[in-house]
Amino acid sequence: MRHFLLIPTFLVFCLSVRAQRFVRFISTDGKEYYGDAILPTNTTDAAKSTHAKVIKGDILGDFQITKQTKEIISLLAPLPSERVRTVRCVGLNYVSHINETNQTIPQWPILFYKPWTSLNTPSDPIPVSEGYQTQGDFISKMDYETELVIVMKKKAFNISDDEALDHVLGYTVGHDVSHRGWQIDRGGLPQPQFSMGKGADGWAPWGPAIVSTKEIPDPQTLNIWTKVNGVMEQNSSTANMIFGVKHLVSFFSMGTTLLPEDVIFTGTPSGVNLGKTNPTWLTNGDVVEVGLENVGTCTNVIKYV
Amino acid sequence: MRHFLLIPTFLVFCLSVRAQRFVRFISTDGKEYYGDAILPTNTTDAAKSTHAKVIKGDILGDFQITKQTKEIISLLAPLPSERVRTVRCVGLNYVSHINETNQTIPQWPILFYKPWTSLNTPSDPIPVSEGYQTQGDFISKMDYETELVIVMKKKAFNISDDEALDHVLGYTVGHDVSHRGWQIDRGGLPQPQFSMGKGADGWAPWGPAIVSTKEIPDPQTLNIWTKVNGVMEQNSSTANMIFGVKHLVSFFSMGTTLLPEDVIFTGTPSGVNLGKTNPTWLTNGDVVEVGLENVGTCTNVIKYV
Repeated sequence: MRHFLLIPTFLVFCLSVRAQRFVRFISTDGKEYYGDAILPTNTTDAAKSTHAKVIKGDILGDFQITKQTKEIISLLAPLPSERVRTVRCVGLNYVSHINETNQTIPQWPILFYKPWTSLNTPSDPIPVSEGYQTQGDFISKMDYETELVIVMKKKAFNISDDEALDHVLGYTVGHDVSHRGWQIDRGGLPQPQFSMGKGADGWAPWGPAIVSTKEIPDPQTLNIWTKVNGVMEQNSSTANMIFGVKHLVSFFSMGTTLLPEDVIFTGTPSGVNLGKTNPTWLTNGDVVEVGLENVGTCTNVIKYV
Repeated sequence: MRHFLLIPTFLVFCLSVRAQRFVRFISTDGKEYYGDAILPTNTTDAAKSTHAKVIKGDILGDFQITKQTKEIISLLAPLPSERVRTVRCVGLNYVSHINETNQTIPQWPILFYKPWTSLNTPSDPIPVSEGYQTQGDFISKMDYETELVIVMKKKAFNISDDEALDHVLGYTVGHDVSHRGWQIDRGGLPQPQFSMGKGADGWAPWGPAIVSTKEIPDPQTLNIWTKVNGVMEQNSSTANMIFGVKHLVSFFSMGTTLLPEDVIFTGTPSGVNLGKTNPTWLTNGDVVEVGLENVGTCTNVIKYV
């Protein structure tokens, strides 16, 4: 009889330490907290959460979700930029995006990096320095790219696809801000490297929450979208990714140590300006919302500085 | 009369805190030290140094070169990998290398990144995991690239060419290990991204010392070379760089914060396997020495793991 009573107690304990939506936020006391976002009714967008249960400890290690609820005054990025050591990104990972940009379907994932200094919060402006603005004949080709972002939990080295998800903390949505002038036109034709067009400070908003692999057991079934000034511009599903989460993690671990808190931006679907006959490049004051089902949105304004 | 005596005292003080060749090493007591390498006669290769003056404090901030001399048992990378937050690299920065690889001269510097986990010591093996070895039709195209490496001292953001050197701690030599199969053939044609072919663990040996900007006031006058198994394969001068150190630092700071301890690999001259009609790709056991005048050498063996 004693054993029957122990089982439910054990289950309750497990649930209490299993955060669904890791957020980091400033509360009414001006202090920073990690928390498990409490969703309002009728939405799974953690950016709409007004309160969170405070988490004590390290969300990458031992932690506890307390009964203490705090008001969210402003959401920060889910992890401080300084904790994210490496930002990997995938190029050309949706067939529709490959078609719109007249590229060929890659046989292997295409990897590039953004520096960690490009990470931004889910709501702060995306700063655009003079060198990225239109000057004479050089047109500023600022573009949006919404992406599912993988957040690593455990060190991974030469792991298999089957082992991959055990190394993942969860998923969030990211904005791979992309300046086509520096990414492609001035990136070094005929084989341009993407880095100059994607790595400026604040050009990688991410958040609003890291949603756990328990809450999203299959990351390849999520709607993903972008709205610019309220108008839907990208609207797809992570089901359309060429290389899924499991394979990306395993592939990038080839001879290479992926570390806890490393993040991987997994590529964008069609609908970007680069694919349009008459693009409307982003400019000062434009508001970009990137969204991922069951995760939420980042909403950032383009700001000339 | 008192003033005349003060001047030499002041000069001695300045000299005493001005390290020429920052090294990090393990000494006979098994402990790690930062030091100012004492060069043997007839060489400026800090890898040949057997002793160093111990440095107390932080070589990026306040430090003191003590009178204490320690024996060098093994040289480490000049900074721990964990301290280097971002590794920038330049593609196609020597005309001779551009010609041998049938590329066009870029109008703007071509930027790509290596993850900090690729950093290696000046003497440890360069590990090559199975995925980078020859398998069936896939030929392992391991190649060497010797480069002058800039080490940042101060935060830089939107700075000019003229301000650049004030933000630099010094220079060292680096080996941008490059696997042409993953860098180009499988990098995503027609616009391959270089990252998969350059970012594996240990694929960026650097050292042996960071030589200060005081010791190298003009970084564009240095011989730079590679020897593979003792045979000279690259032999050029940093005078042949298309974009020099000052412009690279200023250009990469465009809208982007460069941080103290960030490093910049500045591109390689001709002589690499990629440029040869009959390349001899690096394989297990090959010994690669990369060298830079007035700085020294890194000597690492290719090791299949």
